Amino acid sequence: MSGRNFPTAQDAENAFYEALERCDLEGMMAVWAEDEDIVCVHPAGPRLTGQDQVRESWARIFSGGPRARVHIASQVAISGMMLVVHSVHENFTLEGGSKGDARPAPVVATNAYLRTSAGWRMIVHHASPAPSQPEPAARQAAPKMLH
Amino acid sequence: MSGRNFPTAQDAENAFYEALERCDLEGMMAVWAEDEDIVCVHPAGPRLTGQDQVRESWARIFSGGPRARVHIASQVAISGMMLVVHSVHENFTLEGGSKGDARPAPVVATNAYLRTSAGWRMIVHHASPAPSQPEPAARQAAPKMLH
Repeated sequence: MSGRNFPTAQDAENAFYEALERCDLEGMMAVWAEDEDIVCVHPAGPRLTGQDQVRESWARIFSGGPRARVHIASQVAISGMMLVVHSVHENFTLEGGSKGDARPAPVVATNAYLRTSAGWRMIVHHASPAPSQPEPAARQAAPKMLH
Repeated sequence: MSGRNFPTAQDAENAFYEALERCDLEGMMAVWAEDEDIVCVHPAGPRLTGQDQVRESWARIFSGGPRARVHIASQVAISGMMLVVHSVHENFTLEGGSKGDARPAPVVATNAYLRTSAGWRMIVHHASPAPSQPEPAARQAAPKMLH
């Protein structure tokens, strides 16, 4: 598929959101593990599993071209040797919008990454709309390392 | 908190859903890691972090008493030494309902479990409503082991 190699789960996450912003289907699929157990849940969507369903969903989402910037905030990271889980807030800004415009509701996402022979790859992306209210207590904790 | 020790992530998951069905707050909190990095997203809800927010949310949910049975289906498991991620479908059946009644929409959940000194505990629960349509391809794959 792709020769890209992500040395850390964070590198894979950065590439995931860059591909999402650019509507870059090949860049997006290069982030995912080449595995039929990959799981993707788009906001308000059903669970998709496997390369075919996941690729098809991103192709459909990207068909309209780039329209939004996404700012990732409030990351919580739980890191094992072979598996890493990140929880993030995805804050989207629509292209052409000004600061005064109504902004889309934030999305909360759980992303899991797997250490493969080809570096770290995404294995789970679960995103759902979150009520647009600030989190009661802002978190700036350092990533938790288990090893 | 609790003396319960879950030898596997699956044991912790079973206890999680048993506590959910029974509206057993202490049983529920005994499943969670004693860690301020725990993350819980209820369907259509904001992200909650830390023991206090998570306990308070379950106390509110459980305040009405048991009303539903939950059947877990279509599990995908990704297992590391210290961290395990499960994706499941939660199918709820309201108490008093018959088979002919309209059933609540299924929920898709991503659950992450951490191996702690006190056995396996939940570290992330992210649940969101899924459209009530069957998954295109039923999955019965064996759990993936990374070690």
